[in-house]
Amino acid sequence: MPETEIDTLAIVGLGLIGSSIARGARQYGLARTIVAIDRDPGVLARVRALGLADTATDDVAAGVAGADLVILCVPVGAVGAVAEAMGAALKSGAIVSDVGSVKASVVAAVAPHLPDGVAFVPAHPVAGTEYSGPDAGFSTLFSGRWCILTPPDGTDAAASARVQAFWEGLGAIVETMTPEHHDLVLAITSHVPHLIAFNIVGTAADLEAVTQSEVIKFSAGGFRDFTRIAASDPTMWRDVFLTNKDAVLEMLGRFNEDLAALARAIRWGDGDALHELFSRTRTIRKGIVAMGQETAEADFGRARPGPVPDKASPSV
Amino acid sequence: MPETEIDTLAIVGLGLIGSSIARGARQYGLARTIVAIDRDPGVLARVRALGLADTATDDVAAGVAGADLVILCVPVGAVGAVAEAMGAALKSGAIVSDVGSVKASVVAAVAPHLPDGVAFVPAHPVAGTEYSGPDAGFSTLFSGRWCILTPPDGTDAAASARVQAFWEGLGAIVETMTPEHHDLVLAITSHVPHLIAFNIVGTAADLEAVTQSEVIKFSAGGFRDFTRIAASDPTMWRDVFLTNKDAVLEMLGRFNEDLAALARAIRWGDGDALHELFSRTRTIRKGIVAMGQETAEADFGRARPGPVPDKASPSV
Repeated sequence: MPETEIDTLAIVGLGLIGSSIARGARQYGLARTIVAIDRDPGVLARVRALGLADTATDDVAAGVAGADLVILCVPVGAVGAVAEAMGAALKSGAIVSDVGSVKASVVAAVAPHLPDGVAFVPAHPVAGTEYSGPDAGFSTLFSGRWCILTPPDGTDAAASARVQAFWEGLGAIVETMTPEHHDLVLAITSHVPHLIAFNIVGTAADLEAVTQSEVIKFSAGGFRDFTRIAASDPTMWRDVFLTNKDAVLEMLGRFNEDLAALARAIRWGDGDALHELFSRTRTIRKGIVAMGQETAEADFGRARPGPVPDKASPSV
Repeated sequence: MPETEIDTLAIVGLGLIGSSIARGARQYGLARTIVAIDRDPGVLARVRALGLADTATDDVAAGVAGADLVILCVPVGAVGAVAEAMGAALKSGAIVSDVGSVKASVVAAVAPHLPDGVAFVPAHPVAGTEYSGPDAGFSTLFSGRWCILTPPDGTDAAASARVQAFWEGLGAIVETMTPEHHDLVLAITSHVPHLIAFNIVGTAADLEAVTQSEVIKFSAGGFRDFTRIAASDPTMWRDVFLTNKDAVLEMLGRFNEDLAALARAIRWGDGDALHELFSRTRTIRKGIVAMGQETAEADFGRARPGPVPDKASPSV
């Protein structure tokens, strides 16, 4: 088998990310045998119906016993309990990884439960959609996206290289950094954006002067963009904010300072300050498009409604 | 000609919206003659090259002289000056409309300059993309989108019906409300979303601990969604905030109160409060999709990067 192939891959948690890894690993020949582990019988039934794995079980210890690579794809608040349940069952030489959106707390929660002879290479593929569950995954989810590895000091270099090769096999571009720096970077590129999206959707829902029906009808003015990430998995995101509290509050503090300055510019009619910021922010999107992380198509390339009504019967 | 057809349509300002109206009016047979008016010679050159109008001029008074319907498609801060320049040239029985994202200030700025015998029917099509200029427009921009009319008390009902029929001809769904209510509704569905998008992109650009390159690379975690509306036209948006100050600051105050409560829940580890909000916000997106104002496709149906690298040459 090629050097990148894993003999037995165990995936714990077959949601959007876990099921996408299973599909990609199969499609790109990255693992000989795939074991799917999930405690939810409904998920296991879908995994079997979709043929996502060779074996599907709710017994994490039994499931990981023969695995060469175990990837934890559960909410970050649950990784510690899973690591505890499976630690003793891992074979010597196994590599454990994860896909959590927070890294320092995952290292702290998982590492103590892993026996000697097992390497831990934390990972975070920066990819996803607003849908959840095993039916939402697809094999190209990670194609052209970054995957960040945060191996703690002293991690076996061969194990890190193995995990890197696996993610490259899924089409990702791999970068390595410390868990702490990861948590700071993702606080601004992912966690605070989600927080303010959840927040504005909540604010809009709670107004008295504007009805929910009006919010929905006139959402194409900008609001609807925010509803996409505000439709993401609630449990996953609760855990992200609880486990990356310090970095999120730090970045949120910056956001609030800047927003206060912007509100002041509006109140005092400082058009130049507004125009200067609004001109500057165009540049960053161009960089994101140039780096292949965003489409250049107008409006994300959204599908548009059908053509205008039949001209043969004008309404007036 | 059908009742909905306008004899001579004059469009002042051939940006994204104005050029889309020109294209739609031609394509759907809504106007016999189209006059394009713009003070920018570069825009006029593109209008001629694209064949968007029968006549293109930088002289607003001459351009509107024979028009039955005049639509102002300039930034809301400029409508007063345009109305002043063209008022005396309007023919009796002409209808003036606009497309501004703010309505109370537009009514105040335009109405005083219009002679007796000219009706003013302010309008706001809730549609757009992040691109600007005459090349960015397209005839189906308004298809399936709402257009809000805010005729002041005493507006000629036949004039309002004419404008409504015109927008329906472009594929829009028309709703009528007061200028003041419009400004409140749009503050939450459009203006504040733009403000916080501009703001977070600015915050991210100014960090010292996270590089701009990292922000760009890892933007697929959520941040990139915000960069789309933060790439909108700076002059248009400066004017929106300056002319809808009260409603924007009122809605921003609500947003800030809610965000402070959310930050507090994070600081004190109140996972239940977070989960409750994050579950509630999913519902609104479902309503928007159900009403045809948003695609149900994952990730807005964004085009994805190409397939994964060739498996024949593994990198490790």
